[in-house]
Amino acid sequence: MAEFSIIEEFCHGIGPDHADTKLGVGDDAAIIAVPAGMELAISADSMVSGIHFFADVSPAKLAQKILAVNLSDMAAMGAEPKWATLVLTIPEFDADWLKAFSDSLKVIATRFNLQIIGGDTTQGPLNLSITIMGLLSQGQALCRSGAMLDDDVYVSQYVGDAALGLAVLSGEVCLTDEYSDAVVSALETPEPRVTLGQSLLGVASACLDISDGLVGDLGHICQQSRVSIDIDAGLIPLSDAYRWFIANGGTLDLALTGGDDYELAFTASPSQRSEIDCIAEQLGISLTRVGSVVAKRQEAVSVSLEGVKYQLPTSFEHFS
Amino acid sequence: MAEFSIIEEFCHGIGPDHADTKLGVGDDAAIIAVPAGMELAISADSMVSGIHFFADVSPAKLAQKILAVNLSDMAAMGAEPKWATLVLTIPEFDADWLKAFSDSLKVIATRFNLQIIGGDTTQGPLNLSITIMGLLSQGQALCRSGAMLDDDVYVSQYVGDAALGLAVLSGEVCLTDEYSDAVVSALETPEPRVTLGQSLLGVASACLDISDGLVGDLGHICQQSRVSIDIDAGLIPLSDAYRWFIANGGTLDLALTGGDDYELAFTASPSQRSEIDCIAEQLGISLTRVGSVVAKRQEAVSVSLEGVKYQLPTSFEHFS
Repeated sequence: MAEFSIIEEFCHGIGPDHADTKLGVGDDAAIIAVPAGMELAISADSMVSGIHFFADVSPAKLAQKILAVNLSDMAAMGAEPKWATLVLTIPEFDADWLKAFSDSLKVIATRFNLQIIGGDTTQGPLNLSITIMGLLSQGQALCRSGAMLDDDVYVSQYVGDAALGLAVLSGEVCLTDEYSDAVVSALETPEPRVTLGQSLLGVASACLDISDGLVGDLGHICQQSRVSIDIDAGLIPLSDAYRWFIANGGTLDLALTGGDDYELAFTASPSQRSEIDCIAEQLGISLTRVGSVVAKRQEAVSVSLEGVKYQLPTSFEHFS
Repeated sequence: MAEFSIIEEFCHGIGPDHADTKLGVGDDAAIIAVPAGMELAISADSMVSGIHFFADVSPAKLAQKILAVNLSDMAAMGAEPKWATLVLTIPEFDADWLKAFSDSLKVIATRFNLQIIGGDTTQGPLNLSITIMGLLSQGQALCRSGAMLDDDVYVSQYVGDAALGLAVLSGEVCLTDEYSDAVVSALETPEPRVTLGQSLLGVASACLDISDGLVGDLGHICQQSRVSIDIDAGLIPLSDAYRWFIANGGTLDLALTGGDDYELAFTASPSQRSEIDCIAEQLGISLTRVGSVVAKRQEAVSVSLEGVKYQLPTSFEHFS
């Protein structure tokens, strides 16, 4: 039982012990109470070695990313993250790896007030999955289905850096050292926009996180809200690193279609513009208006640059 | 997007659409409401190819087992299963495999009134994990910590068949064809004791499911209830197949320490004996008294056979 017990120990006691947790790790199930007037948002996301990350990525970064990816789903709903279960499949028992993973989990879980209340640890090819749960006032969730005609379309902070980071790691793109570090960091340790999501409750009409690329994800809002969206590619917010990439022959393709950014894209009535500017200022991140919601037509999301239709790269088969 | 969409389709719309599901599959998160006076039990269990099952096991049986393993955790708490998220990692896109998996999921989920409300599908070495959620009246859960001195110790139906099934599949044991089929079936498609768990609310003082072996799992009750347990190995309920195995030179070791049975083991006051007999009769399964709770001593679970201490096999390192 020695190895198993040690692994259990590494993965337990992570995050705060919430008052609404009636029973934590150690029984056949955990038990939580959902306060009156609240609903529970639930989402699951996994990461697999060789598909979502390189096998040699540090356990600390891996822990940070699997939590960030899941926290981002709570952010996209406007939910307050509270609980999670962790399923960890690891190829072999490696105390140093587990300790680094667990220490990093603890830091991020504590920072986001998230309690790990259960899970499973198994031997096998490296695979991580989290099911995350968060609280929302009844009927207040930021869904994908609420976009209205003439709403503005916003995106938080910068897009494209994570895809640029992947291109750097795979040797397809060369940047300066400083910019390389910045975009690889955007890929490996994204910042989930949890506070932003909650600030957008009652402000945004539809919202999601950009995990599959800006244009592709906005397409989900179009589909569920039965609208189309026009994007002005000239307005897309880009980091200094991405601007350097453009100045040295790069295109906007990665910013428009690259995945893994975990920024929020949302729609809101033009009457909310000053409120949204306030939120951006309070949180110290940019919220950039990049387009608007139009009547449904065949093409879900249409992108133009300086008044001319922007030709997106041929979409690839997505299986990840 | 074709393959991805098809996989999504295979894994969606599984199980009933509960009234308390405010938002199902298709957004960044699902949203559920927990009725007033109820709490939510949450558990996660995973299965990895080559560790928990042979790589060539049929997708239908795999779906059945991953659900059964998780439903069994709800059973062990006395909870009513309601929702689950499914994370599926598969090595390649195989429409036949996915359809068989999905069809089988649907049958079991429908039978147990369980709705799949989210998840993730990824490419990689075969790995399945489910986080399951169920409802319980406030404070009513069957925990591991409630066993009292002089309580009876019970186990449902038969133990040891799953371990015997594994021994048959790995060629270590030969049974008749009929008995081989029976024990392999016990291993591959266990029956979660969901109705039994709910029937034991207010009756059992502590309860868990036997996934790691009867003696090992009773040890968890001992640890959390600060008691010890005496087991009479002569009372352990055995199937016809296991009795044939014993008659042909087999021992009780697998019944006492083998895993994967997913029967319930529970403790109850002797004043509940007639009530427990009634439950057994109503449900058409046996509930067998195999021992009793004694004062805490160094050895958590002590097993005797015909008045003599039964020597358990040396415990193995558990990492699965």
